[in-house]
Amino acid sequence: MTATELASALGAELIGSPDITVTWIASIESAGAGDLVFVDSEKYLPQAMASQAAAIVAGEFARSAQSAKPLLIVRHPKLAFSRAARHLRRTPKEQGGVHPFAAIDPTAKLAPGVSVREFASVSSDVIIGAGTRIGVGCFIGAGVTIGEHCELKANVTVYPGTHIGNRVIVHAGAVLGSDGFGYVRDPDTGRYEAFPQVGRLEIEDDVEIGANTTIDRGALDATVIGRGAKLDNLVHIGHNVRIGTDVVIAAQTGVSGSSVIEDGAVVAGQVGIADHVRIGAGAILGAQCGVPTGKIIRGSGILFWGTPARPIRQYLKELAALARLARK
Amino acid sequence: MTATELASALGAELIGSPDITVTWIASIESAGAGDLVFVDSEKYLPQAMASQAAAIVAGEFARSAQSAKPLLIVRHPKLAFSRAARHLRRTPKEQGGVHPFAAIDPTAKLAPGVSVREFASVSSDVIIGAGTRIGVGCFIGAGVTIGEHCELKANVTVYPGTHIGNRVIVHAGAVLGSDGFGYVRDPDTGRYEAFPQVGRLEIEDDVEIGANTTIDRGALDATVIGRGAKLDNLVHIGHNVRIGTDVVIAAQTGVSGSSVIEDGAVVAGQVGIADHVRIGAGAILGAQCGVPTGKIIRGSGILFWGTPARPIRQYLKELAALARLARK
Amino acid sequence: MTATELASALGAELIGSPDITVTWIASIESAGAGDLVFVDSEKYLPQAMASQAAAIVAGEFARSAQSAKPLLIVRHPKLAFSRAARHLRRTPKEQGGVHPFAAIDPTAKLAPGVSVREFASVSSDVIIGAGTRIGVGCFIGAGVTIGEHCELKANVTVYPGTHIGNRVIVHAGAVLGSDGFGYVRDPDTGRYEAFPQVGRLEIEDDVEIGANTTIDRGALDATVIGRGAKLDNLVHIGHNVRIGTDVVIAAQTGVSGSSVIEDGAVVAGQVGIADHVRIGAGAILGAQCGVPTGKIIRGSGILFWGTPARPIRQYLKELAALARLARK
Repeated sequence: MTATELASALGAELIGSPDITVTWIASIESAGAGDLVFVDSEKYLPQAMASQAAAIVAGEFARSAQSAKPLLIVRHPKLAFSRAARHLRRTPKEQGGVHPFAAIDPTAKLAPGVSVREFASVSSDVIIGAGTRIGVGCFIGAGVTIGEHCELKANVTVYPGTHIGNRVIVHAGAVLGSDGFGYVRDPDTGRYEAFPQVGRLEIEDDVEIGANTTIDRGALDATVIGRGAKLDNLVHIGHNVRIGTDVVIAAQTGVSGSSVIEDGAVVAGQVGIADHVRIGAGAILGAQCGVPTGKIIRGSGILFWGTPARPIRQYLKELAALARLARK
Repeated sequence: MTATELASALGAELIGSPDITVTWIASIESAGAGDLVFVDSEKYLPQAMASQAAAIVAGEFARSAQSAKPLLIVRHPKLAFSRAARHLRRTPKEQGGVHPFAAIDPTAKLAPGVSVREFASVSSDVIIGAGTRIGVGCFIGAGVTIGEHCELKANVTVYPGTHIGNRVIVHAGAVLGSDGFGYVRDPDTGRYEAFPQVGRLEIEDDVEIGANTTIDRGALDATVIGRGAKLDNLVHIGHNVRIGTDVVIAAQTGVSGSSVIEDGAVVAGQVGIADHVRIGAGAILGAQCGVPTGKIIRGSGILFWGTPARPIRQYLKELAALARLARK
Repeated sequence: MTATELASALGAELIGSPDITVTWIASIESAGAGDLVFVDSEKYLPQAMASQAAAIVAGEFARSAQSAKPLLIVRHPKLAFSRAARHLRRTPKEQGGVHPFAAIDPTAKLAPGVSVREFASVSSDVIIGAGTRIGVGCFIGAGVTIGEHCELKANVTVYPGTHIGNRVIVHAGAVLGSDGFGYVRDPDTGRYEAFPQVGRLEIEDDVEIGANTTIDRGALDATVIGRGAKLDNLVHIGHNVRIGTDVVIAAQTGVSGSSVIEDGAVVAGQVGIADHVRIGAGAILGAQCGVPTGKIIRGSGILFWGTPARPIRQYLKELAALARLARK
């Protein structure tokens, strides 16, 4: 794409040569000829201008810079750069189609443009929407529905009855809709018997799920992952959990049964959320913090840390007090 | 099933219409016509009676209730409800048989009624007991033995030589019998060399293993998962660990090499148990707590919390003292 | 092998009968006829001599022992024992070859002796070096290069473009080169858009990667796992992380984006390393500790513990001070 075409696609103001060709994206450190880079702070602008890059996406701060390279001025450089990557993406459009080594039940309904790779298995009564791609070695259980333009990478397992919306991305090895962890102890024998895990898992549109993450189905009702939620690798979501829209959960965090994370909350890595917890909209949980059973955390934009999780100011005060005490 | 048949199957006392048909189970909130619900506290009884449910499993407390619906009176409502689910289960009996796209070594011995799904691989000298089901994409290594009526969901990996008992359920993506993490540093080169990981993994009867959980084989001897133990998702069990009978371990907990968890212990989520630890019978480890190398934890029914794990009373006292100190 | 042959292979000094045959290795507790055992402390020598073992690897301390069994005297008994296991290994040499149920793209280049098991998929432009074994159900994405004598166990997923060196072992269910976790929030809509995750993953020689571990590719540049690094099960490595040579990382530890772990560092289990952290060469991080964003940890051989991670001496002092305070 020429700088002009790209500027137009991004709604950017172009300063400098309109005809330079941009072919791909890169970091400033590794940029080569034809690469687009971005700068979201004036500090890095000189480095970007001295790099091999073909053009620079930058904020208003760059407007008066003396740049030999074309500048694409936007309000949110990192966002525009992310979008540029989608415009420039070179991966050849994979054509749809079912690989001869895939196993498709005759009752499954595949929309046009669906691709199913080798050694994937699609069970009875599955419905898959247009443009969705099922990776190598995936298992799609009976009665699953998957929307349009989803992508399941390799070796994903989807248990029977799971519902997946549109434009959902599931990374390799993730397990969706597994049985929840619920047992009843027989007081006569001391042995555990499984409580029925027969509910559903519903994943809404635009969700992304990391590699080897596991999400359990509801016990009797549903587990729900809200629209636009992003889950990192090795996350665990228990039965009957409800994750709101645009929630972000980093790697290795676990959410126990029946907890609720409201819209826009941000959960860092290795956080532990016990059962029947409610994390309020927009709250932020710091890495490794722990929220005990039944607790309610409230405060949009407030960062909580520690186990049990408390506002960061309090937690830091306690750490400082403890350090002083130990020094005596 | 009629209410009478169900009462008889559960050993319940039936109060009310004997002929009402019960077809499936549900939560009180979502119950429709034909559904069975349960109530284990008097508090929820009015809600259950007002629901769409066909019948209610309840405790002695409901005996004198004025209910329009049949009541099944039992000592342990949740347990009876769990068993009712098994009586009512509607999933058609899957027939056995080996899928034409499964790879079965000619030396493997499959008992009658074994089912092996597509893209599963069963290696040399494997023995599988009657009624066991091997899911899509599973790999069963050489010399593995699996008992009767087990179920391995999709994409499970079982390393060579692993022994699995009867009625064991393994969820998708679990890895059983992987090499333990043991290295010896060569002091001359500073490089690590693998210590031999050639022991076995033995999983006893009635164990359930969660999705993407990993259990290492013993280094020279065996790793043992005791009868009736329940492991949640993303749990890690190191080499030479011994898990007792009826032990429960919640998600994302890790148990390091050579540790022992005695019978009936309960381990919450994200707990870290270092190597050569002993957790006494019936002890309870709270979420995210940590047990250091070589430590012995004793006390049936006592809850431990924090890192290093200590009795909850002490831990809470310390938290309170710290909060007071920080307030000064 | 005779005791003499083994002694010569290990560079050990043999005391006692040279003709005794050693067939395999064992622990002292389970040793049977023909087994080799090792003793790295004088304390266990009597037990070893009383065992059924055929021969004993021991340190200088055993030189004057009155043993009926042959003693192989070495400087590092555990290391010599590990090497003995490799000499005695009985597993028949698997022959190479591509299973008829594997899917190999015609543009892939497989060196002599490469083995690809059933239901594995090797994509376009993949290059695999001599003697490397690809397990059942693995997916190797387009453009991946894998060196010589590697072993990928079952159900491993390797994303496109990943580079793997020589003698690398990858355990079942691991995911290599998945997209990193990076999003940009559109301030107008509040929705997250994916930041491009188009970098590479480079795994150097002699690395071992545990079961169900996940390693993300770089966002724009590379994630690098250094020569000889050992990663346990269920570890998470984020995008752009650089792991030095001979680094050891135990189970369930997570390393966030752009962090660096320098050569020879040792990281215990369930450790959380936030983004843009630097762990200095040879530092030791205790189990469950947490290192906050941007922090630099320095000190070869020094053990850090707690969240935020601090030198163990300080941490233990604080624990003691807190316990005293709570007792008042």
